[in-house]
Amino acid sequence: ERLGFPEVVFGAGKTLEVLTEILQAYQAKGLNALATKVQPEKGKQLLNTFPNAFFEEVSGIFMLEQPQQNKKPGPQVAILSGGSSDAYVVNEAFHTLNFLGCGAKRFNDIGIAGIHRLLAKVEELKSFSVLIVVAGFEGALPTAVGGLLPQPIIAVPASVGYGVSAGGQVALNAMLSSCANGVSVVNIDNGYGAAMAALRIVKALTR
Amino acid sequence: ERLGFPEVVFGAGKTLEVLTEILQAYQAKGLNALATKVQPEKGKQLLNTFPNAFFEEVSGIFMLEQPQQNKKPGPQVAILSGGSSDAYVVNEAFHTLNFLGCGAKRFNDIGIAGIHRLLAKVEELKSFSVLIVVAGFEGALPTAVGGLLPQPIIAVPASVGYGVSAGGQVALNAMLSSCANGVSVVNIDNGYGAAMAALRIVKALTR
Amino acid sequence: ERLGFPEVVFGAGKTLEVLTEILQAYQAKGLNALATKVQPEKGKQLLNTFPNAFFEEVSGIFMLEQPQQNKKPGPQVAILSGGSSDAYVVNEAFHTLNFLGCGAKRFNDIGIAGIHRLLAKVEELKSFSVLIVVAGFEGALPTAVGGLLPQPIIAVPASVGYGVSAGGQVALNAMLSSCANGVSVVNIDNGYGAAMAALRIVKALTR
Amino acid sequence: ERLGFPEVVFGAGKTLEVLTEILQAYQAKGLNALATKVQPEKGKQLLNTFPNAFFEEVSGIFMLEQPQQNKKPGPQVAILSGGSSDAYVVNEAFHTLNFLGCGAKRFNDIGIAGIHRLLAKVEELKSFSVLIVVAGFEGALPTAVGGLLPQPIIAVPASVGYGVSAGGQVALNAMLSSCANGVSVVNIDNGYGAAMAALRIVKALTR
Amino acid sequence: ERLGFPEVVFGAGKTLEVLTEILQAYQAKGLNALATKVQPEKGKQLLNTFPNAFFEEVSGIFMLEQPQQNKKPGPQVAILSGGSSDAYVVNEAFHTLNFLGCGAKRFNDIGIAGIHRLLAKVEELKSFSVLIVVAGFEGALPTAVGGLLPQPIIAVPASVGYGVSAGGQVALNAMLSSCANGVSVVNIDNGYGAAMAALRIVKALTR
Amino acid sequence: ERLGFPEVVFGAGKTLEVLTEILQAYQAKGLNALATKVQPEKGKQLLNTFPNAFFEEVSGIFMLEQPQQNKKPGPQVAILSGGSSDAYVVNEAFHTLNFLGCGAKRFNDIGIAGIHRLLAKVEELKSFSVLIVVAGFEGALPTAVGGLLPQPIIAVPASVGYGVSAGGQVALNAMLSSCANGVSVVNIDNGYGAAMAALRIVKALTR
Amino acid sequence: ERLGFPEVVFGAGKTLEVLTEILQAYQAKGLNALATKVQPEKGKQLLNTFPNAFFEEVSGIFMLEQPQQNKKPGPQVAILSGGSSDAYVVNEAFHTLNFLGCGAKRFNDIGIAGIHRLLAKVEELKSFSVLIVVAGFEGALPTAVGGLLPQPIIAVPASVGYGVSAGGQVALNAMLSSCANGVSVVNIDNGYGAAMAALRIVKALTR
Amino acid sequence: ERLGFPEVVFGAGKTLEVLTEILQAYQAKGLNALATKVQPEKGKQLLNTFPNAFFEEVSGIFMLEQPQQNKKPGPQVAILSGGSSDAYVVNEAFHTLNFLGCGAKRFNDIGIAGIHRLLAKVEELKSFSVLIVVAGFEGALPTAVGGLLPQPIIAVPASVGYGVSAGGQVALNAMLSSCANGVSVVNIDNGYGAAMAALRIVKALTR
Ligand SMILES: Nc1ncnc2c1ncn2[C@@H]1O[C@H](COP(=O)(O)O)[C@@H](O)[C@H]1O
Ligand SMILES: Nc1ncnc2c1ncn2[C@@H]1O[C@H](COP(=O)(O)O)[C@@H](O)[C@H]1O
Ligand SMILES: Nc1ncnc2c1ncn2[C@@H]1O[C@H](COP(=O)(O)O)[C@@H](O)[C@H]1O
Ligand SMILES: Nc1ncnc2c1ncn2[C@@H]1O[C@H](COP(=O)(O)O)[C@@H](O)[C@H]1O
Ligand SMILES: [Mg+2]
Ligand SMILES: [Mg+2]
Ligand SMILES: [Mg+2]
Ligand SMILES: [Mg+2]
Ligand SMILES: [Mg+2]
Ligand SMILES: [Mg+2]
Ligand SMILES: [Mg+2]
Ligand SMILES: [Mg+2]
Repeated sequence: ERLGFPEVVFGAGKTLEVLTEILQAYQAKGLNALATKVQPEKGKQLLNTFPNAFFEEVSGIFMLEQPQQNKKPGPQVAILSGGSSDAYVVNEAFHTLNFLGCGAKRFNDIGIAGIHRLLAKVEELKSFSVLIVVAGFEGALPTAVGGLLPQPIIAVPASVGYGVSAGGQVALNAMLSSCANGVSVVNIDNGYGAAMAALRIVKALTR
Repeated sequence: ERLGFPEVVFGAGKTLEVLTEILQAYQAKGLNALATKVQPEKGKQLLNTFPNAFFEEVSGIFMLEQPQQNKKPGPQVAILSGGSSDAYVVNEAFHTLNFLGCGAKRFNDIGIAGIHRLLAKVEELKSFSVLIVVAGFEGALPTAVGGLLPQPIIAVPASVGYGVSAGGQVALNAMLSSCANGVSVVNIDNGYGAAMAALRIVKALTR
Repeated sequence: ERLGFPEVVFGAGKTLEVLTEILQAYQAKGLNALATKVQPEKGKQLLNTFPNAFFEEVSGIFMLEQPQQNKKPGPQVAILSGGSSDAYVVNEAFHTLNFLGCGAKRFNDIGIAGIHRLLAKVEELKSFSVLIVVAGFEGALPTAVGGLLPQPIIAVPASVGYGVSAGGQVALNAMLSSCANGVSVVNIDNGYGAAMAALRIVKALTR
Repeated sequence: ERLGFPEVVFGAGKTLEVLTEILQAYQAKGLNALATKVQPEKGKQLLNTFPNAFFEEVSGIFMLEQPQQNKKPGPQVAILSGGSSDAYVVNEAFHTLNFLGCGAKRFNDIGIAGIHRLLAKVEELKSFSVLIVVAGFEGALPTAVGGLLPQPIIAVPASVGYGVSAGGQVALNAMLSSCANGVSVVNIDNGYGAAMAALRIVKALTR
Repeated sequence: ERLGFPEVVFGAGKTLEVLTEILQAYQAKGLNALATKVQPEKGKQLLNTFPNAFFEEVSGIFMLEQPQQNKKPGPQVAILSGGSSDAYVVNEAFHTLNFLGCGAKRFNDIGIAGIHRLLAKVEELKSFSVLIVVAGFEGALPTAVGGLLPQPIIAVPASVGYGVSAGGQVALNAMLSSCANGVSVVNIDNGYGAAMAALRIVKALTR
Repeated sequence: ERLGFPEVVFGAGKTLEVLTEILQAYQAKGLNALATKVQPEKGKQLLNTFPNAFFEEVSGIFMLEQPQQNKKPGPQVAILSGGSSDAYVVNEAFHTLNFLGCGAKRFNDIGIAGIHRLLAKVEELKSFSVLIVVAGFEGALPTAVGGLLPQPIIAVPASVGYGVSAGGQVALNAMLSSCANGVSVVNIDNGYGAAMAALRIVKALTR
Repeated sequence: ERLGFPEVVFGAGKTLEVLTEILQAYQAKGLNALATKVQPEKGKQLLNTFPNAFFEEVSGIFMLEQPQQNKKPGPQVAILSGGSSDAYVVNEAFHTLNFLGCGAKRFNDIGIAGIHRLLAKVEELKSFSVLIVVAGFEGALPTAVGGLLPQPIIAVPASVGYGVSAGGQVALNAMLSSCANGVSVVNIDNGYGAAMAALRIVKALTR
Repeated sequence: ERLGFPEVVFGAGKTLEVLTEILQAYQAKGLNALATKVQPEKGKQLLNTFPNAFFEEVSGIFMLEQPQQNKKPGPQVAILSGGSSDAYVVNEAFHTLNFLGCGAKRFNDIGIAGIHRLLAKVEELKSFSVLIVVAGFEGALPTAVGGLLPQPIIAVPASVGYGVSAGGQVALNAMLSSCANGVSVVNIDNGYGAAMAALRIVKALTR
């Protein structure tokens, strides 16, 4: 644990054995632990060893303890996304925030192909302290949000698309080039990083 | 002249001598001629040889005869752009359409950073038969237009930007990835090509 | 439904559950629905839930209702392609046009490696209002078509090739660089988008 | 003016005439105005028309009114950089914050090649509310800062380097890949955007 | 001299002093010498030192001795190109062949935008032993030639174009992806290399 | 059949059904046929339908008739490669030449990591009319061969390598940049194209 | 065997049959042999043929003889890495050094996200003659090591990461751009090459 | 000064004023100083302020004190290059080594296009402790050297070439992919970094 951020385990490139060892070390100390990008098969096998743990297949989030369902106090984070294909990133951010003790709410399927869907949420969105905005394809949602709302915005490109937009590079570059004011960006598919960036702001707000 | 399209001369990579020769051949036949992407210095020197010709420095368009200012009959083309930096592309399309005998009108500075500017033009835009939409940076304007208007849309990425958006590749890829329906795209900075694509549609409408 | 375009579902990145829900919502409203890029396994499973639906494995097109085989009235769209490897893109455009109520005909296997095959079709092609041209490898077919026919042309690069042309980027860039007049382009493998762009023109012709 | 952000003019791609017109319009309304990335020659000529304006050649920042030298009240922003080559980006952020009424201080030449230089500043840096971190070459400074300090961090890649790091793409990608928690990133050389992202956080802190 | 190929000097990256020294060494031995890609200013200064030398500015070819104008005996090489913009590459190949003692003829301005121009030359082209085919933009000319003529074909991409085709990479990749049989390719703008590849074939034919 | 080149079928992107149909059409006309890049599973299934056909799994070459083992008359083609990993490309060229009636011999495992292995073959190689040179990784073999032998050389990059050389792009670019005289290049893994380019030269030699 | 380096077999692109043959040839001569990047399935099957051989699945290292566990005499090599995900590269270097008769020790999990972990090892690291430093993601570990220790450093980028850092290219470029003095770099995932570069230095030290 | 390495100033991105200040600070302390990649104009102006300094225009190396011409004691470094175009990189390495007190000798113009030129030097090269090998175009020289000599090799790609090899990326990637054993690589044009890497080895040899 550094600077009040809990250690988070990068699950994608670790074998089942290594992950199990690391998680058992946390458990032995009586600590909760979060692993990200755990592939489905590996996650299911971990549940055998850690039967009380939480694993969500869509995002690959694994936690030793069940997420707390009660509304968290303090500044709230909104997570917006263009479509249901972005759910894996949205959920990674959502469960990470939950793990960190931050309140968060998801606003799915409000991409700018139907701008009225976003407009209908603007009032509700004004009450959130930080906005995480996820989008694939041409990644235009953060620009639209940035033109409508004044809060800190963390944009997350999703690797959703095909042809030139396969892999998320176009969404990433469009977000970095946004003509909206003051949008900052994290790595493609990095819902975890967006949650951590939001946490830095939430901490500043409650200091 | 092929298929009713007049020959157009690509001016960028030709020496002054070669351009002069080609244009004199047209003149000798009593024909008007259009050259694109003629650099400022070269354009000015051509005006010495062809004192009655038209040269616009911003777009690099050179025509043997002056453009006609009267409103053209038939289907009209609207050329939209996000900001004044895109003027060189807008004007290339505009003067090419003029050369081709197509009516055209420019709508500058209506980028989505201030979405109300576009919304204020929607009614007027409904009367145009084809929409050419120019944008640099993250190239999001065609998506917004595509969600608001039903006409054929030809998107033109402009090489306006810096960092990841320098050179226009991000705008191009964002336009190709657009989640708006049925937007088609031409090469970066290709205002001439967009005008030609519009002409194909205008011809179909008047056939 | 925006601007008279029916909603279309992007099938590739959605789970079976999400797709089923979305389609059931359309069905409940008594509407037909189109999903694109549905992978074979997912498409077959959807057919279990929607036994009267249409699924074509080559293109990944899924429709709640069977396509109508009668010749559509109004302007017709020709879909040309270089070879049988491009069939998945051709069919995506074809079935989308059918779903949209547009008449369409396929001209396969007329690539420029045997230019006589294209030349033999020029007369018949003159009667179509819009040309969709699909090609992989070096993507030269739209240039050849553009030099022979005056109609609006929408070029679609196919991700058919290997080595430098794997993934369709070479075909895309060659089409964007075409020295033929007024060819416009959609994303790699985007048969659906080409159909939508054609629909915009067809609507203009019948307005 | 949208959402309390003043309009900012992108100076790089505009002619002297266009810039002059835009700035005169602001002046006529009795408003201050900020233009970014104004090239040296253009900036000097603007000073002829606007003799009371401020122009800094290193960053290309142009303001109609002189920056205010008094310490601003409220949350303060620290701008860190690896070396003196990054000054053009540092200054763009610094002058933009000044224009926006935000207090800011520069910490130059504390790159990780001499980690003690950064360590010597950690105590002082704790009192700032937001950290903007600029770096070229391999862009490792934000990672080091992120491991030492808990505040919101906005990383800015600088196009300083040569060979593989020319243009700033390596620094950008390294920052996006940072193993430090919650670092978010803006476009290469985008000191202005970093200032705007900082402003969004400062506003949240003072709301 | 290796394998009967004369040494050729790469002129682009050498200072005037270095080039002068190298050429004087050849001259001292009573040998002719060829330097490629000599920039205009450098070439003109070399002519001061070597007043009997040959320098052509378009291609940057410099030879100690004047090219021989008499028709060379033996197998002849045809050099085809799409447009006058490709002349700098065409001429590099032409003068190199002349230097090597190979007969060569240029066929300019026969790009596939006007396929009849190529067709009109097919009969004449049949008498040549090797075909060098130069093209910029989408680089489709070698494919067309390959479908019409059975001789060895060496394709040369030219860095003529803009947007996605700037720099010649699209033409290169299109040529490598050609669906025509047995087209081989050299580096972008490498007219010299194409001449050398032709020489290898000519030597085989006369062995 | 064009220009005396037999039609060749690109097998990779075609379904078993389509391939079967095409091959049956050839068979019905009493013709042999060649399909390239046929995947192992598809090739084996084709052998069920065409029990007298030839299928080599390494290269994916499928022929309706068995290759002829007798030494072909006329100019001979040597196929050199750096290592046994390149065998799939070498064999594609070898079997295509066999199909075309050209004599060919393979020289495997003579990469420049052990330059003596190449040197030991130079004498024997002098008797061949055309050299096809295959290499992966840094693709340096054609340069070495080009410095030692005067015949026409067709270089083929193989997609053998990892890290920066994965996919064959480094080998391709190195071959295009070769400082050896007159090496020309075909697409990555394009053994078939190299054979066709060799055939064009062999035909010229026997005309 | 060249220059005292034993021959090493690149296992990734070779069939089981080819690998078996090559290894049997070594065995027949009574020699040990090393194969790298042998895929798990292939490695296990090789163990059937060579029951006394050594195969480590993580790195894909296969040796005919068991590695020697005794501490090697002479200069020692330290292999550092940021996290357990890099183990496959670390082990490739480690087992290659063992095969070459060089002493080596692994220091895992000392990435700069927790700089104290590296600092705690600095004293011990001073006794090693060469440092191999492996890192994925943003690849910053070699820079940190280079600022703390004076020995020769060979940096190895690992293809560990996702989004922009997938494939290891960011780590590679960051290492090449390192502002630390005198870090040199090998290909992505090239633990074997790093071991060989270390061997060259070790040999120089013992000459 | 860290670890016994003197501080070196990166001159390319610094203004004349900043460079002058930094150098004066060294001078005031009675220290020599090295600045790299100083552009010609800037270097000449610095000589006005520091009339006893050394500036070499080809490499852009600036030193407060004149280089020492006496042969340095201790291990010697050889710097090899393919051609005279690579001199700017060769000299950067040479003068840096001189500044560091290391003995060095240059071997120019021994590229593999004439392999005998390299072979003729092999005996002499055996006496050097470290080999720095510079090459542009396809960057094959380090592979050849690596197959002939057993010392530590540091390869430096030069941005010499055109078309696909412009900018040095091909040479870099070829060197990273080298099939020669244990070649390590520094950034494109980084003669300074190669000298520093050599110094690390030289120090190890003299410890
Ligand atoms: N999804 C993720 N994306 C980026 N960094 C991560 C992710 N998950 C964990 N990390 C970081 O990776 C480091 C742990 O790496 P490791 O020791 O390999 O588990 C910690 O610094 C985490 O902050
Ligand atoms: N700006 C432009 N972009 C793309 N193609 C162009 C442009 N201007 C002219 N052309 C085309 O280039 C061809 C003329 O090329 P050239 O013979 O080199 O002048 C014609 O087919 C024109 O249609
Ligand atoms: N335009 C060119 N493109 C590629 N290689 C060239 C060119 N001109 C000369 N060369 C080759 O460059 C080598 C001479 O290089 P240099 O010693 O630097 O002049 C010779 O092997 C020539 O074959
Ligand atoms: N040519 C060069 N290439 C890479 N790094 C350099 C170069 N010249 C100086 N440096 C490094 O740059 C740092 C100095 O940067 P600066 O403070 O901007 O002068 C030092 O760590 C030097 O080791
Ligand atoms: Mg989306
Ligand atoms: Mg714009
Ligand atoms: Mg095709
Ligand atoms: Mg820096
Ligand atoms: Mg051309
Ligand atoms: Mg090889
Ligand atoms: Mg790591
Ligand atoms: Mg070289």
